[in-house]
Amino acid sequence: MKVLLTNDDGIHGPGLMALYKELYQDFDLDVVAPDSEMSAVGHAITLTSPLRVQAVHKNGTFFGYGVKGTPADCVKIAVQELLERPPDIILSGINPGANVGVNVLYSGTVSAATEGAFLGIRAAAISLDTRQDPDFRFAAQFSREIIRYIMENGLRERTALNVNIPAVPVGEILGVSITRQGVGRFEERFERRIDPRGNVYYWLSGETPIEEGLSDTDARALKENKISITPISYDLTCREEIGRLQRCSPPTFRHLVEKSEGQ
Amino acid sequence: MKVLLTNDDGIHGPGLMALYKELYQDFDLDVVAPDSEMSAVGHAITLTSPLRVQAVHKNGTFFGYGVKGTPADCVKIAVQELLERPPDIILSGINPGANVGVNVLYSGTVSAATEGAFLGIRAAAISLDTRQDPDFRFAAQFSREIIRYIMENGLRERTALNVNIPAVPVGEILGVSITRQGVGRFEERFERRIDPRGNVYYWLSGETPIEEGLSDTDARALKENKISITPISYDLTCREEIGRLQRCSPPTFRHLVEKSEGQ
Repeated sequence: MKVLLTNDDGIHGPGLMALYKELYQDFDLDVVAPDSEMSAVGHAITLTSPLRVQAVHKNGTFFGYGVKGTPADCVKIAVQELLERPPDIILSGINPGANVGVNVLYSGTVSAATEGAFLGIRAAAISLDTRQDPDFRFAAQFSREIIRYIMENGLRERTALNVNIPAVPVGEILGVSITRQGVGRFEERFERRIDPRGNVYYWLSGETPIEEGLSDTDARALKENKISITPISYDLTCREEIGRLQRCSPPTFRHLVEKSEGQ
Repeated sequence: MKVLLTNDDGIHGPGLMALYKELYQDFDLDVVAPDSEMSAVGHAITLTSPLRVQAVHKNGTFFGYGVKGTPADCVKIAVQELLERPPDIILSGINPGANVGVNVLYSGTVSAATEGAFLGIRAAAISLDTRQDPDFRFAAQFSREIIRYIMENGLRERTALNVNIPAVPVGEILGVSITRQGVGRFEERFERRIDPRGNVYYWLSGETPIEEGLSDTDARALKENKISITPISYDLTCREEIGRLQRCSPPTFRHLVEKSEGQ
């Protein structure tokens, strides 16, 4: 079985390497990942400059392709151009740091999985909830279970899995929760600084999640030392709002169009 | 009423200027936009470099702030730092080129509106369905109607509007459709080239939507010369898949965790 590995912190990222080591003996692995760190790029793709691709070797052996682009670029060019045939599964990660709540939309790791779903390929994003000395071994083992689950059960069309793993010793993990994405706000602020030339610049800082009080979110599962698995879709339509728009819109909107038609 | 204007093609973009001209006499406008083109950046935010902000003047008068960052950065820093009080409404656009279907996820224009929704501010993204000599006047007038609709009816929490306007003479616009985001795939390919130094590079090209055969999508509305309005949410959870994951996952996933607990 063919598995494509990618990530957002670059083809030399230790989280990707942990996946590689866990899986290379049992799967036909391809690695196509950004050639440098691409965190918080969201679902960006590169249109205004060309994509450059370089073969990357490790210990004298071909390891994969480094792409001067985003994680979504990597998946696109892997599937459409670089690989002989599309992978059966795409794994994106392992990201050092959780991708939960609204951060899912900023996440390059998750967007690579979403791009896979666009292309009709089953995909999962894997993140470990720490940026400090991450130990990726259990997360890598669990990724193998994710592959097994997907192969046994399939995935709904246009859906990918967003998997977050608590960064605690394995014995303290209290199980697996199927969750929904938290939608709570973050308390953010910008830190204003002045550079040696007198110019003002700002750092984004102080991201503190505002507690949602919901029990079934991704962030809550992590807090309870559970592995969080959220099925995510790329259909952003808010169906609940369609009815109200349909009821409320005619007098407001058609006014202008009708007036214009009569001109 | 305070309205924040932003976009993804830069503070000097003609679509933003068209909005400004249409609205400045009736609203308290703020402009905070990228200082250069930022198309297809998705919901990227800038974490690894600081944000630089410059006051931009037009005809000797202060016009707004140009930010060396993405559309989402612009909304964040406008609301959290630059403006004295948050805007009542955020308008992002007018983008030259439609933002429909899966392209919504790549769109900087749409992500600015989504970022507004994150921050609890009512927001809409406005796009005109052409990149060739766009005439933004009607789209700008229609944006005024969008403001009116939002003020009269509100918007569901965590929801923004994605508005696409056909690029035809006003008299040929056949009305307004409340739509859902299309989820059809695109036929894409990469064009392989070799630079003068012998290095390979690729351009993404040939995006052709694969017909979905659905009647209520954003792309279909445009095709029928209708204005498309899609309510979009940033909760990516695929609720339909949660039940199946809950049913199917225990034997697959818990295996590893339980085994590890027993170690």
